[in-house]
Amino acid sequence: MTDTAQGTQDLTFPQGFRAAALAAGIKPSGKTDLSCVVSDSDCTWAFAGTRSTTAAACVTRNRALFSGDGPVRALVVNAGNANAATGQRGARDNADLADAVGSVLNVPEDGVLTASTGIIGHLLPMDRVLSGAEHLPEELRAEVAPFAAAIMTTDTHPKTAAVTLSGGARIVGTAKGSGMIHPDMATMFAFAFSDARVDRDTLRSAFPGIVNRTFNAVTVDGDTSTNDMAVVLANGEAGEVDPAEFLAALEGVMRELARQIAADGEGATKLLTVRVSGARSEAEALSAARTCCVSPLLKSAVHGNDPNWGRVIMAVGRSGAEVDVERMTVSVQGIPVFAGRPLPYDDSAVSASMKAGEVVFEVGLGVGEASGESWGCDLSAEYVSINADYTT
Amino acid sequence: MTDTAQGTQDLTFPQGFRAAALAAGIKPSGKTDLSCVVSDSDCTWAFAGTRSTTAAACVTRNRALFSGDGPVRALVVNAGNANAATGQRGARDNADLADAVGSVLNVPEDGVLTASTGIIGHLLPMDRVLSGAEHLPEELRAEVAPFAAAIMTTDTHPKTAAVTLSGGARIVGTAKGSGMIHPDMATMFAFAFSDARVDRDTLRSAFPGIVNRTFNAVTVDGDTSTNDMAVVLANGEAGEVDPAEFLAALEGVMRELARQIAADGEGATKLLTVRVSGARSEAEALSAARTCCVSPLLKSAVHGNDPNWGRVIMAVGRSGAEVDVERMTVSVQGIPVFAGRPLPYDDSAVSASMKAGEVVFEVGLGVGEASGESWGCDLSAEYVSINADYTT
Repeated sequence: MTDTAQGTQDLTFPQGFRAAALAAGIKPSGKTDLSCVVSDSDCTWAFAGTRSTTAAACVTRNRALFSGDGPVRALVVNAGNANAATGQRGARDNADLADAVGSVLNVPEDGVLTASTGIIGHLLPMDRVLSGAEHLPEELRAEVAPFAAAIMTTDTHPKTAAVTLSGGARIVGTAKGSGMIHPDMATMFAFAFSDARVDRDTLRSAFPGIVNRTFNAVTVDGDTSTNDMAVVLANGEAGEVDPAEFLAALEGVMRELARQIAADGEGATKLLTVRVSGARSEAEALSAARTCCVSPLLKSAVHGNDPNWGRVIMAVGRSGAEVDVERMTVSVQGIPVFAGRPLPYDDSAVSASMKAGEVVFEVGLGVGEASGESWGCDLSAEYVSINADYTT
Repeated sequence: MTDTAQGTQDLTFPQGFRAAALAAGIKPSGKTDLSCVVSDSDCTWAFAGTRSTTAAACVTRNRALFSGDGPVRALVVNAGNANAATGQRGARDNADLADAVGSVLNVPEDGVLTASTGIIGHLLPMDRVLSGAEHLPEELRAEVAPFAAAIMTTDTHPKTAAVTLSGGARIVGTAKGSGMIHPDMATMFAFAFSDARVDRDTLRSAFPGIVNRTFNAVTVDGDTSTNDMAVVLANGEAGEVDPAEFLAALEGVMRELARQIAADGEGATKLLTVRVSGARSEAEALSAARTCCVSPLLKSAVHGNDPNWGRVIMAVGRSGAEVDVERMTVSVQGIPVFAGRPLPYDDSAVSASMKAGEVVFEVGLGVGEASGESWGCDLSAEYVSINADYTT
């Protein structure tokens, strides 16, 4: 992940990809809110969208294109308006946006993916969106920074990660963060772009597992937004790569983005990491870890540097994951606090160790060999003030 | 529910029931923390306990007695210590408490139910608990108030409800509240006592449904504590009753207690009620309503009097309940805001209507005839300060 260190400012897209961003007037702030990424050639791609039964128009359309199975070349993103719960008019607006961006980029409409993020229940200002779209070609460039900024909503900073494979091919990822809990802001977008040539079936079969171990592990409030999506586009311009190396690198990029999303939670002051081992299955390990990360109670304790490990016992217990309490173990920042029974420990020492940028709980379920990790953030009073008065 | 109006202070138990409460020194505050209820005669009873896989010793033991199928006559409760995650020693302590209370009350050990609530992961101070138990008989009386107070933890006031059936038999209920989110304080106890004579099988078959529509509808943070339990004891001393009238009255008492629990959430300033109709099944209606009530995002909007109904769309969407968004309806305090598409409404008028003691959202899913209701509370910054520093 050496590229990550270079930071968002200097980061460029892989070969054949360019992006454009501009302010179309969707965000009241006047910040950039309409952007696109286009590839010079067709891309092998994979998609994962929200399981919400009230999914937004963009998710429904992308899912249909994905099952349609054709290649894509472009992605258009608007921030500031989720175009969700907007009825059939919203679906038409979404298709019109894809059509308009496709024609200015010379890409067929069904080669253009769409992504909208922002408040639910408001129609897109199509006049501004469409006139903005006409100017996207003028803004196309290789730099990632303008795109990474234009997809943000309440994020405090852009989120990117990148890696170079042994053969020189690259994977560049960008994401927009979930705050700790603001799913109506379309919690999560994750986009990965690569110039590697990768087999379509290999990518499609591996992608769901990668998403499950990375972005689905960072659903910090258990809420699933109407607009969540993860997309990977590979245009093959850098030639063949080792599939195993590519998939591992892709998961590394997505894991890094997931951690950045968790750490940038609304009102968050630290990253919460829960590692579960000894589970009967990876699914149960991830469920137990996630249930800890979504517990407002545990998150509050982490905020207060309170080593209240009983809240981990509670969260694991209600996750439904099989556990042998007699063999169960819990440690906080590496300090064992429970092993089938409460262990003696220095309250103030453990509390002091929790005053770090990342607080790690390690939990052993004692029933199997599977493991899983989840990321969240602490819960602060600032979160409430952020979310108690959003629309009004 | 006329008896409810008389208030906790004057409330007495049904015929043949007496209760005792004293301070055994479990709570650092020195408040009453050890209590019991005993019936002069054997009781028909029903029990519902937490589904947590890390259930406390009291839940495990009561569940075993319930499957054992014999009558019970007494219930002993300690507050301030959950006796959960305390290993085999904790299980022995729990059995020893039942044994000690049984002998001073002349009830066989397997006729005594146990209930512990408080912090997880600490052994019971058995010396103080057992010496306290010896003095319980001296404190036995017909008044409910001392018992209702002794079972509280962070509750701000005792919770009781009572009803008199047409034939004169009574049902008296007491509960300890969940704060909005403090499951390690053993979110919820609900105990109902009646002098009605009710058929064992009738009671046992109806109880799970009643609990599901009342206490399970008030799991405001989705967390399931290690100690949650609901118990109903009927000693038959007032003679036969109409089963249908009894079960309806019991559900009324439990519904009233559930609403009191929700309204007394930690840091709560108002009750949140979500009514879902047009669902495919009662289970899906309850799931959709619960998912709205547990959403920290919606709860924050309610706290800020923010009519951000998009958060209802989100919560229903992720609940998994089947919905036809084109036929879906949402109203806030009786004001329609969504009907397949956003409806025009006066933001400030809706916001003003939310400055009430109870905020009601009514949601139509448009796919069936089933309905369900759930209760929660708003999320305030005070919640975080309450929970950020509990043990230390």
